[in-house]
Amino acid sequence: MPLPLAGLVVLDLTHVLAGPFASLTLGDLGARIIKVEKPGTGDDTRAFPPFTKGKSAYFAAINHGKASIALDLKGEADRAIFERLLERADVLLENFRPGVMERLGYGWDSLHARYPGLIYGAVSGFGHTGPEARRPAYDMVVQARGGVMSITGEDGRDPVRVGASIGDIVAGMYLTQGVLAALVDRARTGRGRKVDVAMLDAQLAILEHAIAITSATGKPPGPTGARHPSIAPFETFHASDGLFVIAAGNDVLFEKLCITLNLPLADDPRFATNPARVEHARLLKRLIEAVTLGDTRAHWIARLQAAGIPTGPIQNVAEVMKDPQIVARNMVVDVLDRNGRQAFKAAGNPIKMSDAEDRTARGPAPELDGNRGEILRWLDGG
Amino acid sequence: MPLPLAGLVVLDLTHVLAGPFASLTLGDLGARIIKVEKPGTGDDTRAFPPFTKGKSAYFAAINHGKASIALDLKGEADRAIFERLLERADVLLENFRPGVMERLGYGWDSLHARYPGLIYGAVSGFGHTGPEARRPAYDMVVQARGGVMSITGEDGRDPVRVGASIGDIVAGMYLTQGVLAALVDRARTGRGRKVDVAMLDAQLAILEHAIAITSATGKPPGPTGARHPSIAPFETFHASDGLFVIAAGNDVLFEKLCITLNLPLADDPRFATNPARVEHARLLKRLIEAVTLGDTRAHWIARLQAAGIPTGPIQNVAEVMKDPQIVARNMVVDVLDRNGRQAFKAAGNPIKMSDAEDRTARGPAPELDGNRGEILRWLDGG
Repeated sequence: MPLPLAGLVVLDLTHVLAGPFASLTLGDLGARIIKVEKPGTGDDTRAFPPFTKGKSAYFAAINHGKASIALDLKGEADRAIFERLLERADVLLENFRPGVMERLGYGWDSLHARYPGLIYGAVSGFGHTGPEARRPAYDMVVQARGGVMSITGEDGRDPVRVGASIGDIVAGMYLTQGVLAALVDRARTGRGRKVDVAMLDAQLAILEHAIAITSATGKPPGPTGARHPSIAPFETFHASDGLFVIAAGNDVLFEKLCITLNLPLADDPRFATNPARVEHARLLKRLIEAVTLGDTRAHWIARLQAAGIPTGPIQNVAEVMKDPQIVARNMVVDVLDRNGRQAFKAAGNPIKMSDAEDRTARGPAPELDGNRGEILRWLDGG
Repeated sequence: MPLPLAGLVVLDLTHVLAGPFASLTLGDLGARIIKVEKPGTGDDTRAFPPFTKGKSAYFAAINHGKASIALDLKGEADRAIFERLLERADVLLENFRPGVMERLGYGWDSLHARYPGLIYGAVSGFGHTGPEARRPAYDMVVQARGGVMSITGEDGRDPVRVGASIGDIVAGMYLTQGVLAALVDRARTGRGRKVDVAMLDAQLAILEHAIAITSATGKPPGPTGARHPSIAPFETFHASDGLFVIAAGNDVLFEKLCITLNLPLADDPRFATNPARVEHARLLKRLIEAVTLGDTRAHWIARLQAAGIPTGPIQNVAEVMKDPQIVARNMVVDVLDRNGRQAFKAAGNPIKMSDAEDRTARGPAPELDGNRGEILRWLDGG
């Protein structure tokens, strides 16, 4: 069976990360992605390091398998091509500053009147409404303003950013969801919708427990380092050769942990219940580390896994990419060059689907305007 | 116009966070969510603090607007009800350990044979395939093993976890995407698909730049505190009353910043280009803070915003929930009790859609088995 979005055409005006991350997923699910870039330089990330043979590995990781055409949306000839593409497109994506599409004559109202089945997906820093709709934002700005930094880091030290660009990525994922929901809707109504996702909104949407705590107690939570704020032991521990995680989420797992580590703590009133363990979490960490420092993390992970206790190493990204479970799940794929040789590595598709091939390689990241000829031939019905 | 998923029925066997987060979004988009819980205690998060009037604010934040029926899937009478629900359902969600559904007689193969249009969405720690498919996992385990902790925190100190539970949440979001893509597909084929999402896979999928760097250079990146690893100035700075962010992503913005702060650095060769600024980022931070410590963060944010430089405060979650842009975007909604009074607060829907009401309140979080009568009447056509 074909991929679930086979046959759908996405016209993608987005650049950098949030928007291209959305079209990456739509492409992995089978849609045809036509990346419309600005003539001359194209997507800014074409210039982002690191480079392999002069090509950005960053750009390749997010744009593999897409086709590229460079269009000047202020020039008549290119506008005519763009409008022919709109006639064939199911979805249009853009992440300009709000107002830009209107000035180009391609705002939602006029597009919807002319192409009633077209779905229009927009992602921006603060959204298309509200007092700050037109302000610029970057990932770091919405991570800070959106609250996630206030709960990330060590208590008593300055907050840190999340190392992955979740300000962009989570917004891109909500854009994907909105576009897919609009496609489900269109299958019944025949009509497209506009989807408007703000990076700031998306940060708030992932704060779940922090919103519950703040609204129930009036007191916003702070950062707790590598420890879960309300479960213990549920944090990192030092072994002789590095850190690993023990996540003993309930009394049964804690008792198993005590047996496995030969620690006579399960009957101690300071550790008999989860609330008691949370209260004495610092002491508990030292008592556990007094044992775990005596052997390697591999030793302890094997022992704890055998006992059914959730555990695992803290892996750097090179280790993750070689993790046997990650490899078995086809989560690191090859990005090919135009000669079919492996040029880069990229993340695989985490949406595994029955009767859909889970491809181990992806087509090349496009050259700027590199697919102009074939796109024009396709428009001509060739 | 109705919400985009109006009329669709989701039968939701999931508990805790990853699965319920997926059905939360599907519900916000208009689907009817029937939460099937284990008799007696139901979803574990019903017992998660904090509580308001004896009810978990955590459970309410993730489960508002869903209906609940408690079913013993090993008992004949309840299995008959479950199978009648399957006949009416468009989507089944579960987050059991792989193999549990098969032991209940509800594995994908038998469900697909009996209910060919049903979409089956599963989320688990490590996925339904691979050597570790059956191992247990928690958010903290996949954050550690999946690499995000290795790039989060301060250089030279132990890594920290991301304060939001992105191990669960990102997996739930991919599950939502997979289910929606399968619905798009089903509109053409009439046939359902199985969607299998692993929390570990989902962590790898969000590492974008870290994978590009590791695969191009062989060297995995480490944590960089609150600073972007390859852009400067792009980090937090101290004002007289707290921290704020300056994200001057290119030379033009840096020059504007120097003018705004009255800092004669734009022609200094140590700061003339972004690579030079990254090399001297620690010095640059001190030169900027020597100015910004002289006034409040509100002062500097207003000055920088007037100059068009991306900036913002680091807000705690209480501040975020009152942020005027967040309020204008309806991103904090009321969760009502059964009498229609506000009982909790929850995150709004970040997917804003044309012709779809952006509701300011949500229906109650269900009592355990609280909708049994109405669900049975609905099955009887009442």
